[in-house]
Amino acid sequence: MSSDSTTALVHIRAHLSETSNLPLYQRLQRALRSAIEQHLLKPEDALPAERQLAADLAISRITVRKAIDGLVGEGVLVRRPGSGNFINTRIEKNFAKLTSFSEDMRARGRTPRSVWLKRSEGTVTPDEAMRLRLSPGAAVYRFHRMRYADDVPMCLEYATIVASCLPSLEAVDVSMYDALERAGNRPVRALQRLSALLLNAEQAALLQAKEGDAGLAVERLGFLRDGRAVEFCRSYFRGDMYDFVAELNAG
Amino acid sequence: MSSDSTTALVHIRAHLSETSNLPLYQRLQRALRSAIEQHLLKPEDALPAERQLAADLAISRITVRKAIDGLVGEGVLVRRPGSGNFINTRIEKNFAKLTSFSEDMRARGRTPRSVWLKRSEGTVTPDEAMRLRLSPGAAVYRFHRMRYADDVPMCLEYATIVASCLPSLEAVDVSMYDALERAGNRPVRALQRLSALLLNAEQAALLQAKEGDAGLAVERLGFLRDGRAVEFCRSYFRGDMYDFVAELNAG
Repeated sequence: MSSDSTTALVHIRAHLSETSNLPLYQRLQRALRSAIEQHLLKPEDALPAERQLAADLAISRITVRKAIDGLVGEGVLVRRPGSGNFINTRIEKNFAKLTSFSEDMRARGRTPRSVWLKRSEGTVTPDEAMRLRLSPGAAVYRFHRMRYADDVPMCLEYATIVASCLPSLEAVDVSMYDALERAGNRPVRALQRLSALLLNAEQAALLQAKEGDAGLAVERLGFLRDGRAVEFCRSYFRGDMYDFVAELNAG
Repeated sequence: MSSDSTTALVHIRAHLSETSNLPLYQRLQRALRSAIEQHLLKPEDALPAERQLAADLAISRITVRKAIDGLVGEGVLVRRPGSGNFINTRIEKNFAKLTSFSEDMRARGRTPRSVWLKRSEGTVTPDEAMRLRLSPGAAVYRFHRMRYADDVPMCLEYATIVASCLPSLEAVDVSMYDALERAGNRPVRALQRLSALLLNAEQAALLQAKEGDAGLAVERLGFLRDGRAVEFCRSYFRGDMYDFVAELNAG
């Protein structure tokens, strides 16, 4: 074992020795998650083999397997047949659930961060008026941001919010959905459209990618419970970092 | 008006003069759909302006608007603010509904067609075995196809089907889902994963696109009602032809 994985092992052992009512496999899951968050296990390296982990921690292989299964199910780990278990560096975004970028990142143990490109008040464009079903001249807020997970650029986001849904332009700090929720105007339903594109020079520079790299464009139109539109948002994701997943049902 | 749109207008008038119990806007919707299917209205040209259509057909603008609204809702037409209404040449695929390529195309009045790249019997690869939860050595059928809508290449599809779910390799004619349905093994649930990629030389040649163009890769794992996996399918779509859409709900 490398010195890195020895440090990780010490960390995991310390976690497992803490008093807890949780079953052992869940405590191991937590310990592994914590080791990942603290960068003691690194994305480019394989995790210690399941057999090895079981021996080093003096627990059963079934418990180790159950903990790893759980983390694979959460999208934190990925199994590569023949080469082992790895930290999943791609983000798997559920395409059927209305969650915000901040929530998605926090759920993966990463810290969401935003850099403002533009934050302004204005009136709707004809295109926005049509999509948001607003009258010409209606007031909107525009939030243009680069979104980061820890310090990795993930997403370029251009959101237009109906001004009457927020108390002020400054109400949005990191999470726009948190601000909308505080104002009682968090969308409960959205229409989403996803397409592939080649990143242009500006998008690539902001996303620290190369011009012509594969990207995903997502348009989202969010609605309140009473059917009024709240937000129209265009996002651009690096193609090498994001997957969209969904469960489909017949009929 | 060009001679083309005059021909379209004659076609639409003929349709509207037929006896029908449907409201006028629905008859206009049908007439427009039929003119599109018969290529009397062309993708690259704007439709006659709504005001013009109303005048030429001697019906109200509200009726025309309602018919157009319906076709926009179906994804047949698309409104481009400032330049008019156009035939939507992009396919909008519902990402939450388990439908086959053939069904998707027929629903848009287009004829699905397949060209076989490979149709063979074999045993699972380790990757397929893991995904389909099969034992090593299990028999599968492989269906590799180019899918066309009318004569336009839309999608490159590599499907692996658990052999016990189909009577024979030849059971699949155009629609794999039709064949599975006849065998009582049509999937009712699927996990789907979508990502962006740059088309490689081989994919681009088959899809009549350029190497390095934007593409969408979709992986689908289909399950029977009893939870057994039936199909694992990888598809590649031209990025300029396909959008994936979904309705999202909170929580």
